[in-house]
Amino acid sequence: MNTILNQQSFSNTTAQVDEAAIKPLPNSRKIYVQGSRPDIQVPMREIKQADTTTSNNSEKNPPLWVYDTSGPYTDPYVKIDIRSGLPALREKWIEERNDTEVLSGLNSAYGQQRLNDPALADMRFNLQRKPRRSKAGMNVTQMHYARRGIITPEMEFIAIRENQRYEAFTTENYDLLAKQHPGQDFGASLPKKITAEFVRDEIARGRAIIPANINHPEAEPMIIGRNFLVKINANIGNSALGSSIQEEVEKMTWAIRWGGDTVMDLSTGKNIHETREWIIRNSPVPIGTVPIYQALEKVDGKSEDLTWEIFRDTLIEQAEQGVDYFTIHAGVRLAYVPMTAKRMTGIVSRGGSIMAKWCLAHHKESFLYTHFEDICEIMKAYDVSFSLGDGLRPGSIYDANDEAQFAELKTLGELTKIAWKHDVQTMIEGPGHVPMHLIKENMDLQLEHCDEAPFYTLGPLTTDIAPGYDHITSAIGAAMIGWYGTAMLCYVTPKEHLGLPDKDDVKDGIITYKIAAHAADLAKGHPGAQIRDNALSKARFEFRWEDQFNLSLDPDKALQFHDETLPQDGAKVAHFCSMCGPHFCSMKITQDVRDYAAKQGLSEDEALKQGMEEKSEEFKKTGSEIYNKL
Amino acid sequence: MNTILNQQSFSNTTAQVDEAAIKPLPNSRKIYVQGSRPDIQVPMREIKQADTTTSNNSEKNPPLWVYDTSGPYTDPYVKIDIRSGLPALREKWIEERNDTEVLSGLNSAYGQQRLNDPALADMRFNLQRKPRRSKAGMNVTQMHYARRGIITPEMEFIAIRENQRYEAFTTENYDLLAKQHPGQDFGASLPKKITAEFVRDEIARGRAIIPANINHPEAEPMIIGRNFLVKINANIGNSALGSSIQEEVEKMTWAIRWGGDTVMDLSTGKNIHETREWIIRNSPVPIGTVPIYQALEKVDGKSEDLTWEIFRDTLIEQAEQGVDYFTIHAGVRLAYVPMTAKRMTGIVSRGGSIMAKWCLAHHKESFLYTHFEDICEIMKAYDVSFSLGDGLRPGSIYDANDEAQFAELKTLGELTKIAWKHDVQTMIEGPGHVPMHLIKENMDLQLEHCDEAPFYTLGPLTTDIAPGYDHITSAIGAAMIGWYGTAMLCYVTPKEHLGLPDKDDVKDGIITYKIAAHAADLAKGHPGAQIRDNALSKARFEFRWEDQFNLSLDPDKALQFHDETLPQDGAKVAHFCSMCGPHFCSMKITQDVRDYAAKQGLSEDEALKQGMEEKSEEFKKTGSEIYNKL
Repeated sequence: MNTILNQQSFSNTTAQVDEAAIKPLPNSRKIYVQGSRPDIQVPMREIKQADTTTSNNSEKNPPLWVYDTSGPYTDPYVKIDIRSGLPALREKWIEERNDTEVLSGLNSAYGQQRLNDPALADMRFNLQRKPRRSKAGMNVTQMHYARRGIITPEMEFIAIRENQRYEAFTTENYDLLAKQHPGQDFGASLPKKITAEFVRDEIARGRAIIPANINHPEAEPMIIGRNFLVKINANIGNSALGSSIQEEVEKMTWAIRWGGDTVMDLSTGKNIHETREWIIRNSPVPIGTVPIYQALEKVDGKSEDLTWEIFRDTLIEQAEQGVDYFTIHAGVRLAYVPMTAKRMTGIVSRGGSIMAKWCLAHHKESFLYTHFEDICEIMKAYDVSFSLGDGLRPGSIYDANDEAQFAELKTLGELTKIAWKHDVQTMIEGPGHVPMHLIKENMDLQLEHCDEAPFYTLGPLTTDIAPGYDHITSAIGAAMIGWYGTAMLCYVTPKEHLGLPDKDDVKDGIITYKIAAHAADLAKGHPGAQIRDNALSKARFEFRWEDQFNLSLDPDKALQFHDETLPQDGAKVAHFCSMCGPHFCSMKITQDVRDYAAKQGLSEDEALKQGMEEKSEEFKKTGSEIYNKL
Repeated sequence: MNTILNQQSFSNTTAQVDEAAIKPLPNSRKIYVQGSRPDIQVPMREIKQADTTTSNNSEKNPPLWVYDTSGPYTDPYVKIDIRSGLPALREKWIEERNDTEVLSGLNSAYGQQRLNDPALADMRFNLQRKPRRSKAGMNVTQMHYARRGIITPEMEFIAIRENQRYEAFTTENYDLLAKQHPGQDFGASLPKKITAEFVRDEIARGRAIIPANINHPEAEPMIIGRNFLVKINANIGNSALGSSIQEEVEKMTWAIRWGGDTVMDLSTGKNIHETREWIIRNSPVPIGTVPIYQALEKVDGKSEDLTWEIFRDTLIEQAEQGVDYFTIHAGVRLAYVPMTAKRMTGIVSRGGSIMAKWCLAHHKESFLYTHFEDICEIMKAYDVSFSLGDGLRPGSIYDANDEAQFAELKTLGELTKIAWKHDVQTMIEGPGHVPMHLIKENMDLQLEHCDEAPFYTLGPLTTDIAPGYDHITSAIGAAMIGWYGTAMLCYVTPKEHLGLPDKDDVKDGIITYKIAAHAADLAKGHPGAQIRDNALSKARFEFRWEDQFNLSLDPDKALQFHDETLPQDGAKVAHFCSMCGPHFCSMKITQDVRDYAAKQGLSEDEALKQGMEEKSEEFKKTGSEIYNKL
């Protein structure tokens, strides 16, 4: 990793891309699948495999296509310059719809103030483009189009992107799987192929969202919904205590390299506005924020001084920058606050506690709640999606599934219906800290109260006793709730509860959550999800070590761990590994057994039916020879 | 950690204890709870807590007692010398039963051969004691005693050891929990208090085992069964490719420091006999092995040359050393081998593949199966427990829950009943690689076929695509199957599939599995299990940073992570943390809210019923003051 510049030395001229984030992954190349028009180019990562070679023949192993969130960074043909930002791939699609207008300048008062501050000139991202918003009376959300029956290029892009797993999943594989797992109906509840029509219908129904602000044309369309691949989010952001713009941009590119589907910028420190601009302009994935954090900074941290006007201007400021989804804690109602007084850990959501304090101080419902329809008006002018925050989520096992939490969830369900009345895309945030046996209730109630709007959960952590390992305590809960139907999992890093995550922590969090999301995809029975497991296991069984590393979520670490014990290059083609050594390798012995059976033309029960007395003698000899070769 | 000596330089004179393993954990001390007789001294770790101090008063936080597997190593009053081994705490109990005799020497031919080899003199552990076995016609298993109604000191020891959670779980806590979780019947299916009678009855029923070889009197009694705390096992052991005796002993002391309940020595390299002796003599936890590994070494790795006689001598050799449980793959029947030929990854159990090869080569049922009753005779002469190995467990998601796997499980059930006929304690090993939705079927079938004998699973891994992170892919499955009823979880380290674990990997594996086991205890509703979560969460909420670290599974890492962002000593008493900084801390804001409510004498709904208009004004002022103090 390259050197991190500190806040002071960061400027438009020193800004640089993280070299570690732009290297293609081992034996992988970026490919693009074209849609119905030449400007629909859907990126995927192709992982090549070696052939299987045995004594008598050689078998091709097909390359594998995997979902790729890393954007142009891993495409060696694209020149990356973070000072210019990424190409605006959606710009034409947005223009074509002819329902937006380019503004002469920023509408946000705060945005203007920052733009006109000469002291910020050097650290400001140099954006040439003017912001865009809907024409008067127009609604520019993907949900609005979907409900009018329109298939947007974004929807088609997503259908191709999600569909790869079905394409790759040949009938032959399916039959094998079905045979292997009698009674398991793989993917019966899912469409056999994701079509653009299916994407549109899920969006129209509110069961999925496409976070795609018209001012973030750089983003590659993606979808969050339980009939699609489970997605993961990475939180980044500075705090008053540290981290620079350069570092935050690096965390973003690092997070998407390893599989982050969206990134939330939760900055609460200095220069939040400028940091966000740099992140959005360089992000191929949707960016989410919690606008109340910045609003609070504007009133010097005094939550009781927050007003609707300040909050409204913050929404517009961020919408004009291109934030794709806003976490809004509008479900924290005055009456629910006292329900938290006897909790073990009170209110642990930052946004939730800010709003609770405001409600108590003013003895009123919050402006987020009373102005909810005004917020919808802003959301639909830019197509910002709601992520309705769970401000009263439990912060400990003790507080899980309590009255306050479920009272808020019910309110979030009511707000979902209001948002949908405005055709504003909406997902719902969920806990938190929940022991395993109480997780399913969260999913069931969310589906019921929120009418199947996508659920987006933080873990949940299944125990409180392992700070330093909360990526693991929470991955257990995340995998389970993903299986039950959660559409996106917000990662937790090893630093949770203890400190600010650095790049290593970001990677650990991402890989851990890719595991949870993928385990959920498998358990939900997405037939295509298992292709990667099958390919990797086949490579493992056949001692194709490099393929095993390359097919894994983290090829670098797999290689490093292998080399710690067996660094020699020869060991990467060896028919054994360091755990057992040559004589004990069970994989090797099984292969001998299988080779022997194949040689005899035996299958299944035949071997036994024929009787194997004489063959066993022969096998003894063959077996001895095999060992002599080692 | 101290320097690792290599195999060549290891000797009885250079052997040394790992200094890192004998330091007491932070703010902890070893305590002993005495049973009905003075020589029943049950060890626990007491973690002290600071008082809670607020502006107006101070509240005591009781010390917490946690289950302690680290043995005398963490007791500063015990002098540790690994050349002498640990004190033989069970010796008198064994003698008193008057059903064993001290042999004049080793019965095992191989044991004698090693003992008489002068070249090994320097690396041999200097054991003064002679081996012991049952008197002719006697059965010395804990199950045999239990079935005759006897409560042994071991059983009483265990009752005290397991019971701490109930003792600590006061009625008040219980009522609070019950209130918090209406409809959740915490621990209703469990006894409210673990008694020695309950331990005896579970052992007699076969639902739990106490692995306690009469030749391992150094071991502190522990129990494996689903009505007790979920246990974890750590695998250690050298291979032909590396690691020394010193390293293996260090891995053992390191594993038990962090919570390993049993340790399996899976050595397949040099000097297996001597390595095992050092481990057993210094281990306060039960030691398990897979005797077929050593038997195979004795025939130079040619599985077809294995014989019952060689295997029998190996069992006696290891039983005389004090191994507490044997993994025996007696369920790999000839007819099941062809069922694995069409698998993705064939047979991945080392023991399973050795036996499969033997069966094919000889075209016979294995000697493990045909001599099963002979094996039982040996087991009951030393009280070695069976761990019936799942030689046909799936090695990939593709192979999960297939015909071969479940055919073997059924056979293991039949063998369980034979073992029980001999009053031999028995547990059953389980998979492996299983996607989440297929995990429960494993547990259900195991309970059915094996009549509730304890289940002992390896993970299972819930996806194959993350080598380098298989402690995590498997912790997800382990937590779930633990919840469903698995009694012991065999850890998986980050090096799984890639290399030999070092001490860091052992620790990562242990902590990850302590998380899985504890999450399972919580989900099963063991009321006492949540005490530690509650204490840690309370400490977190009250900004008692040191207590938060000390109550965690890994205080060293929690402290280190915290200090990476906020190294100043003052930060450990600060009422905020690095994630949000002072103004944004939700915990802080909630405490303000709660303090305010308490000050006003408000509870629950009162606050709202009374109306809070004027109070809100006052709160604004108080709130402002609070911030001014920071």
